[in-house]
Amino acid sequence: MDRLIEKLRGGLPPEAVLTDPDVTAAYAHDHASFCPAGASAAVVLPRTVEQVQHVMRTATELRVPVVPQGGRSGLSGAANASDGCVVLSLARMDRILEIDPVERTATVEPGVVNAVLSRAVQEKGLYYPPDPSSWEMCTIGGNIGTGAGGLCCVKYGVTAEYVLGLDVVLADGRLLRTGRSTAKGVAGYDLTRLFVGSEGSLGVVVRAVLALRPHPPRQLVLAAEFPGAAAAGDAVCRIMAGGHTPALLELMDRTTLRAVNAMARMGLPESTEALLLAGFDTPDPAADLTAVAELCTAAGATEVVPAADPAESEMLLEARRLALRALEGVRSATMIDDVCVPRGKLAAMLDGTAAIAEKHDLVIGVCAHAGDGNTHPVVCFDPADEDESRRARASFDEIMALGLELGGTITGEHGVGILKKEWLARELGPVGLELQRGIKELFDPLGLLNPGKLF
Amino acid sequence: MDRLIEKLRGGLPPEAVLTDPDVTAAYAHDHASFCPAGASAAVVLPRTVEQVQHVMRTATELRVPVVPQGGRSGLSGAANASDGCVVLSLARMDRILEIDPVERTATVEPGVVNAVLSRAVQEKGLYYPPDPSSWEMCTIGGNIGTGAGGLCCVKYGVTAEYVLGLDVVLADGRLLRTGRSTAKGVAGYDLTRLFVGSEGSLGVVVRAVLALRPHPPRQLVLAAEFPGAAAAGDAVCRIMAGGHTPALLELMDRTTLRAVNAMARMGLPESTEALLLAGFDTPDPAADLTAVAELCTAAGATEVVPAADPAESEMLLEARRLALRALEGVRSATMIDDVCVPRGKLAAMLDGTAAIAEKHDLVIGVCAHAGDGNTHPVVCFDPADEDESRRARASFDEIMALGLELGGTITGEHGVGILKKEWLARELGPVGLELQRGIKELFDPLGLLNPGKLF
Repeated sequence: MDRLIEKLRGGLPPEAVLTDPDVTAAYAHDHASFCPAGASAAVVLPRTVEQVQHVMRTATELRVPVVPQGGRSGLSGAANASDGCVVLSLARMDRILEIDPVERTATVEPGVVNAVLSRAVQEKGLYYPPDPSSWEMCTIGGNIGTGAGGLCCVKYGVTAEYVLGLDVVLADGRLLRTGRSTAKGVAGYDLTRLFVGSEGSLGVVVRAVLALRPHPPRQLVLAAEFPGAAAAGDAVCRIMAGGHTPALLELMDRTTLRAVNAMARMGLPESTEALLLAGFDTPDPAADLTAVAELCTAAGATEVVPAADPAESEMLLEARRLALRALEGVRSATMIDDVCVPRGKLAAMLDGTAAIAEKHDLVIGVCAHAGDGNTHPVVCFDPADEDESRRARASFDEIMALGLELGGTITGEHGVGILKKEWLARELGPVGLELQRGIKELFDPLGLLNPGKLF
Repeated sequence: MDRLIEKLRGGLPPEAVLTDPDVTAAYAHDHASFCPAGASAAVVLPRTVEQVQHVMRTATELRVPVVPQGGRSGLSGAANASDGCVVLSLARMDRILEIDPVERTATVEPGVVNAVLSRAVQEKGLYYPPDPSSWEMCTIGGNIGTGAGGLCCVKYGVTAEYVLGLDVVLADGRLLRTGRSTAKGVAGYDLTRLFVGSEGSLGVVVRAVLALRPHPPRQLVLAAEFPGAAAAGDAVCRIMAGGHTPALLELMDRTTLRAVNAMARMGLPESTEALLLAGFDTPDPAADLTAVAELCTAAGATEVVPAADPAESEMLLEARRLALRALEGVRSATMIDDVCVPRGKLAAMLDGTAAIAEKHDLVIGVCAHAGDGNTHPVVCFDPADEDESRRARASFDEIMALGLELGGTITGEHGVGILKKEWLARELGPVGLELQRGIKELFDPLGLLNPGKLF
């Protein structure tokens, strides 16, 4: 152990190697429940690519596992420390290296916080769409590691669609440059995309070239109340089949609406089963809201209220952004599912989730990126109650089983980490799993990078 | 050899195994110049996944190389036969299995012709954007293999962005399902993207789930004439930095304009150095044309003509689509470069290409997806003239060297094939090349799938 610390200190400034257990404990885990976290041997906080290379060379030489970490806001335990590992926090590599309005690219270090980048590019009239709820604390490196999404994905897609090129420090300390800084490029296999969503298991991203868009107009949002999942799901299908392009299309169920009101007194309707929010950032959003309002009414909405202006729209979005935190207040802990199903199966997913909640006598609030079919059932439980905890875990798994049954995936945007390892194997099947393991072995033959995650 | 044919016929109908050398010769190569093509042992034309699996199992058992083929419109020799190989044409697996307006997906077999799919989805109000010039003959499987682009990419991106999930027959005949049929999904490493652009070297795509968009309004196009590359490049930069989102932003140089006029009497201006076409499919394209016209004038355009209506716009696009064929008429053969540079380096790329043409005393016409920085310098030569052929090849290579020097890539959308193998190694560097070769070996340990391509 001493040898590890000594070696690490040989290539890092003293303040960049933390070993006090009281301090390193703060880096032990991310936001996921039910995921074991070990005690690291050290937390390192490099500021340069060379320092990251030094860490990986040291780890390879001494055969010590390394857990790369961003803002630790992940929801699947992918950033959790394991006993004796080196936690490699990229938090201090947080420079925005360049924002180029002609190329519409930003070149950044991995520790840049999502919201910091979003604001910096907005100042130049540009837009970095991926906007996970944790955007004020999560980092671009973490977003790349998990393949993060957000509210905007129904129109603008997920993180993967914005990563053009990467600099990656490999397990053995070598530096790999992937992809490009041009608008297009198809030279060789797409290694860039292989790293997106790889949860730090293939290499350590130390620099990213990101694609940007022109900043869209402020959006107008419509709120529609539905008497049940079937009607809300039908509305989503009508909106998408109707050729509309909402910038967001979100759903909150009654449990979620009550929780948000309880936390923030938002005055959301509590008598409705499902509230749908449809936002448009088009040149004429009012016209889009009118068209979508008609579709919602045709699908059975009991109340349809277009926001009067961007400020009122922003309030509705704020309610949606509070949803996860509000549901944390229902019991003392939550487990957040991330099942994505075909849009046509959204209603079945919602009804099935309600049945699972009833079966296990649990509160499960659902908020969803409805336009993507991406639901976040939030299982509320008290970890001090052993039986409730057991039921929570069981219902969490049953929700994933239901998602797979409906033709969906166990994770739309949160990743696999520790929490869904068994489920990943089920989703991929034996052939896919074998090839994925082969890729892991190719990039990390000693198995040092974030071992125990994904597979 | 007889054993191979016999085994192939054991799992394929008689008409699906072609061995007559006069017939198989027609499947020997794609559209690329300077790429050797061998004589295949057989051409097989399966209609089902099981038949493709039979071909691959047979090839694995007998250690025979297999060259997967689509429409053979490729420009890098990636589909060329090698001596003794089995050419695996997917042309008869050409069914559109499903078009789903709610999920905005199409599920297709690989042999579907791009234009056939485009028209089929348009009938349902949907849009499959990738539109290579060869769209009336190229197949979706070929588009996936090369990572094809087209005119629309500046707004809508390349093929890769529309492939959600794949069924792939592996080298040993096993079937792999990758990706998803949902809007989002981050379960495990992104094997789907690994296959896009892999030129049939990792597996045989037998089914694809493609993302669709709502069909946009018909576009209006503006034509702007520039006295030189610097002014045209400046206009492109101003348009992109100005936050505009053209649906296409194309450039033709004087050589190209003359060639198109010579072929089709289009009445294009021949006195200008560069013609820029900017198209908008926004709700108010006339307003966009007005704004872009001002930017073109500020950049030094000598003439700016907005098309009066969609019909006039279509004529301008038709001229652009004819460009490659028109340049084939200049001499008896062409080599088409595909260098993509940062937009800010477009003018330098155009001027550098002109200098290379002059140095080698050759005609090199340039058309470009200018909004992407993706240039297609078309080297015109007579293959019967040995010295001219040598100079053509030299200039082709010098253009790639220039592209790399300017921070670009050797291929924006045509792929590597045989033609650019050495250049791929230069672009990737030793670490990248080693990992790419490792991936090839993982998926195809016997090296049977399209050997001799890419690396």
